[in-house]
Amino acid sequence: MVSARRLLHTSGAFKMMRGQLIDPVIAYETWGHQSRDRDNTVLIFTGLSPSAHVASSPEDTSAGWWEDMVGPDKPIDTNRYFVVCINSIGSCFGSTGPASVDPQTGEPYRLTFPVLCVEDIAKAGAEVIRSLGIESVFATVGASMGGMTALAFCMLFPDMSRALVSISSASRALPFSIALRSLQREMIHKDPAWNQGNYAAERSPVVGMRLARKLGMITYRSSQEWEQRFGRERATDETLKAGPFGIDFEVESYLEAHANKFIGAFDANCYLYLSRAMDLFDAADHGGQVADGLARVSVDRALVIGVETDFLFPLHQQRELADGLGNTVAEVDFRPLASIQGHDSFLVDMDRFRPAIASFF
Amino acid sequence: MVSARRLLHTSGAFKMMRGQLIDPVIAYETWGHQSRDRDNTVLIFTGLSPSAHVASSPEDTSAGWWEDMVGPDKPIDTNRYFVVCINSIGSCFGSTGPASVDPQTGEPYRLTFPVLCVEDIAKAGAEVIRSLGIESVFATVGASMGGMTALAFCMLFPDMSRALVSISSASRALPFSIALRSLQREMIHKDPAWNQGNYAAERSPVVGMRLARKLGMITYRSSQEWEQRFGRERATDETLKAGPFGIDFEVESYLEAHANKFIGAFDANCYLYLSRAMDLFDAADHGGQVADGLARVSVDRALVIGVETDFLFPLHQQRELADGLGNTVAEVDFRPLASIQGHDSFLVDMDRFRPAIASFF
Repeated sequence: MVSARRLLHTSGAFKMMRGQLIDPVIAYETWGHQSRDRDNTVLIFTGLSPSAHVASSPEDTSAGWWEDMVGPDKPIDTNRYFVVCINSIGSCFGSTGPASVDPQTGEPYRLTFPVLCVEDIAKAGAEVIRSLGIESVFATVGASMGGMTALAFCMLFPDMSRALVSISSASRALPFSIALRSLQREMIHKDPAWNQGNYAAERSPVVGMRLARKLGMITYRSSQEWEQRFGRERATDETLKAGPFGIDFEVESYLEAHANKFIGAFDANCYLYLSRAMDLFDAADHGGQVADGLARVSVDRALVIGVETDFLFPLHQQRELADGLGNTVAEVDFRPLASIQGHDSFLVDMDRFRPAIASFF
Repeated sequence: MVSARRLLHTSGAFKMMRGQLIDPVIAYETWGHQSRDRDNTVLIFTGLSPSAHVASSPEDTSAGWWEDMVGPDKPIDTNRYFVVCINSIGSCFGSTGPASVDPQTGEPYRLTFPVLCVEDIAKAGAEVIRSLGIESVFATVGASMGGMTALAFCMLFPDMSRALVSISSASRALPFSIALRSLQREMIHKDPAWNQGNYAAERSPVVGMRLARKLGMITYRSSQEWEQRFGRERATDETLKAGPFGIDFEVESYLEAHANKFIGAFDANCYLYLSRAMDLFDAADHGGQVADGLARVSVDRALVIGVETDFLFPLHQQRELADGLGNTVAEVDFRPLASIQGHDSFLVDMDRFRPAIASFF
């Protein structure tokens, strides 16, 4: 498989937020070139499921997960910026996570992997940035969980970033989102095939993963979009319609297709760890109150984008984040967008997101 | 067990919407007394899960599911009105459903029970009303699925009701709600214990039912309510917190407690049938377009109540229903309420719902 993936083998112990020591590999990709002053880096953290392949490149021409946003002459212009995208530790696309082999035992970590926090992913990003000889990045960017990670990066390493771009994210997880993610995790660990995390790759808990992904898809989009897109259109696939409680409606076929794509690509234990990391995230852990945590951020500029139809990371959380950052950050631009695609709008509503991001860069 | 339940044994074939014939028993309860002119009946249809026990009575003093709304000197005043509440056919609280024994075989129907439509529940309600010697009811009332049933009743039997009260309901299911309910059903029928519907009562698919009920609870409430109620409060129950991916937050304990209450009380196959009936409901089936179906309603007055934070039956659907009814119904009162408890507000936000209902009656 062609890949532009690079691996940083950390030397010496990497101390996780909860105190455990691991010795991780961190996967990342880069685009463009560093300026002579090493001041043009854009650091991107990802949401729960993507790899570091944010965009195509000569080394790997396959489309990236934010292909419309990152590249030559695109809003995050790789002719001008040196872009670095990090695969989260805990994930399964090159960085060390529960599916990786523990060098101490020669067996996969599985549930012996330490509790993962969003801050650990941010720390791993800092390791990559330092390894590239960069003291401070032009901007740290993240959407969804990636926005939490970008915020954690700016709180933990206030000297390492001069701007923060937070998209459809939050300074902490709220109970409604926690409930949804907790239920997704339960769907997986109640699948008998999960087997307390000890499944073989070819016998993974696909039933639980499929259910969890479907709930994910539901929470990532919006009622309004689906009403326009599907209405009450009936499903046409006779295979899916067969049997008791087969599929009646096109929206059900859509979820089935998306879930099937996902289950082959993502490790269940990794999903559980990353999902829980989002629930555990709270800027208040960095100073007592959320405001105290946010006050640690010392970037010059921040852009906070949220979407009206996002009910997983609701707009009021973006406003609170922007307001909180405003106490210490000179220039905070809060952009509420009227996209109808819910939480996933940053991936699909390019007509609104492209100009918002481009104007910042 | 003390019960005020009455049973109507239908005589002769009961033809279901999809053409099948069954011979059902229909359970119901009544409160108050019929007036001499038999013109004071309030007919109540329920949501998916309740029994016909809407309120306590001398015969059954246990609290009903709408105890604050129905009773002497309450908004639906049983000193003035003769109240009849119907247990939906397809349910498992006295009316015939998938868990009932098929008289033809001596075995439970299970999946041989015919496809259930909301209209079938409405028809069963009409049988009860006729059996009580009532030609026309003062008002037909329903919330959630019960609102769909009340609407179906008024479309199918335009001469049998003089008013309609629809609460947090809709003239048809939209794809977002369909997706959520479809996923709940999948959680149940993917539970190996479901066994194609052939589970013994003591070995029912409790894992799937627990997941489905949790998703139900999430969709019945709102983000705003839970933020106020739970915030990021940590769970205290050490048993639930134990083990990999145990519970971290109080909101998770809350869901666990509610799910445990439900799984003992409701039959899984009945749940599947009733849930799907909601997805299948579409007023457009009664005339070509939704407006044509609504035009069949010939009540004198309609009250349509919706809640801003309801994302399962969103407010715009209540507005559309009120507008549609306005074409033929002389007096339509549309009341959008600012309750924060989401779809379930009609059960808990009595300060807003009591006056809205009382003013109508």
